[in-house]
Amino acid sequence: MSVESKSMSIIVTKGSLDWGYPPFILATTAAAMGLNVTMFFTFYGLSLLLKEFNPQISTLGNTAMKLPMGGMHMSMPNMLSAIPGVDAAASVMMKNLIKKKGVASLEELREAAVDSEVRLIACQMTMDLFEYGLEDMIEGPELGGAATYIECATQSDINLFI
Amino acid sequence: MSVESKSMSIIVTKGSLDWGYPPFILATTAAAMGLNVTMFFTFYGLSLLLKEFNPQISTLGNTAMKLPMGGMHMSMPNMLSAIPGVDAAASVMMKNLIKKKGVASLEELREAAVDSEVRLIACQMTMDLFEYGLEDMIEGPELGGAATYIECATQSDINLFI
Amino acid sequence: MSVESKSMSIIVTKGSLDWGYPPFILATTAAAMGLNVTMFFTFYGLSLLLKEFNPQISTLGNTAMKLPMGGMHMSMPNMLSAIPGVDAAASVMMKNLIKKKGVASLEELREAAVDSEVRLIACQMTMDLFEYGLEDMIEGPELGGAATYIECATQSDINLFI
Repeated sequence: MSVESKSMSIIVTKGSLDWGYPPFILATTAAAMGLNVTMFFTFYGLSLLLKEFNPQISTLGNTAMKLPMGGMHMSMPNMLSAIPGVDAAASVMMKNLIKKKGVASLEELREAAVDSEVRLIACQMTMDLFEYGLEDMIEGPELGGAATYIECATQSDINLFI
Repeated sequence: MSVESKSMSIIVTKGSLDWGYPPFILATTAAAMGLNVTMFFTFYGLSLLLKEFNPQISTLGNTAMKLPMGGMHMSMPNMLSAIPGVDAAASVMMKNLIKKKGVASLEELREAAVDSEVRLIACQMTMDLFEYGLEDMIEGPELGGAATYIECATQSDINLFI
Repeated sequence: MSVESKSMSIIVTKGSLDWGYPPFILATTAAAMGLNVTMFFTFYGLSLLLKEFNPQISTLGNTAMKLPMGGMHMSMPNMLSAIPGVDAAASVMMKNLIKKKGVASLEELREAAVDSEVRLIACQMTMDLFEYGLEDMIEGPELGGAATYIECATQSDINLFI
């Protein structure tokens, strides 16, 4: 059976430069394969829908992150990351790496998700809690709650919480 | 088809003030809609079942967290969060925000989960590892292992790892 | 109906000492129960496939972690974890605790996954981004992309993102 009759839902709860990638890569790949895809943005993930967003990578508490530098893989000691500006520097390094490697930016992936008609739902409760309105968001998202998500997920073949 | 014949399982692995919310909100919403819901508490998520728990929010490494303060959205620099007491202060701010916005507390949501007959399973291996007994937990949870979860998940329509 | 005709897919995105456990425990348990299991290693989780890996636990930002010490449960203040070497010390403590309690090491669980014919997929894009080759990895993994995962997940009964 073709995957084209299948569907996927993703709960998107994280909004940093690194963790913003998995939901958008999975959503756009699945949409390109013909699946019906719904993304439910909630908690810190809601920030990925903001018109103006500047996601940062966080090196703190991330012991597994090793960036390739001059042929070696260097990890970032926690102490280093506690210095103001280091996360910003790591974000620039990561952005340059991503660009050099030909990987799309988060903005490009987000645009691709909108263009491929992925259904975008912004969590009403989180919007209220953090005092955001739809006017702060890109064009496309609708408002919804946990019940909207549950109903969608009961009818989806793949359900992920990211 | 109604969602009432559907079922959901959630693996709950995080126990902080913020990450304790998604599993309880999803579980209680789904239960209210008529789904059979099972929550499997393991790793750091096990602490959500403790009789006495005082979950803290962690601002460290969380670059996407921006609290609304006086109409602006302020992020917390990592440096600030490394100062002892700042996480506790952020937790108080978050609790106040949640209360002000009329969102239920984690304790209330946990009680709602018990009342709506969500099946609660405490991971035996984690209990042993962290030297907890059922007497440390609220009334309600049963003990189980990974096999208990797998068997439940093969029969559930929605499976999430949080 | 037996669970033996069932299948599970896991996206493995984290590579630290603690977060490396859930995917391997779930995968090996499910395989032992007769399920077909696929693990897709991507982002920081890719490091779990490295021949030489030395995963560390991260105490930073982990407010829920309390280690049993002399009958009490002690949490680690964030300030402490920002001191170089403390994560390494916590890792040693955690490894000793795991050993004392008779829990398998990550290496042993990884070996069990290979032996029980869990399908291991290493994410091509992450390999390229972090400049790893299959020669850096243990024997067993194949290369694949998001589309490989999506196709597998549409046919799996349980899909988890860890």
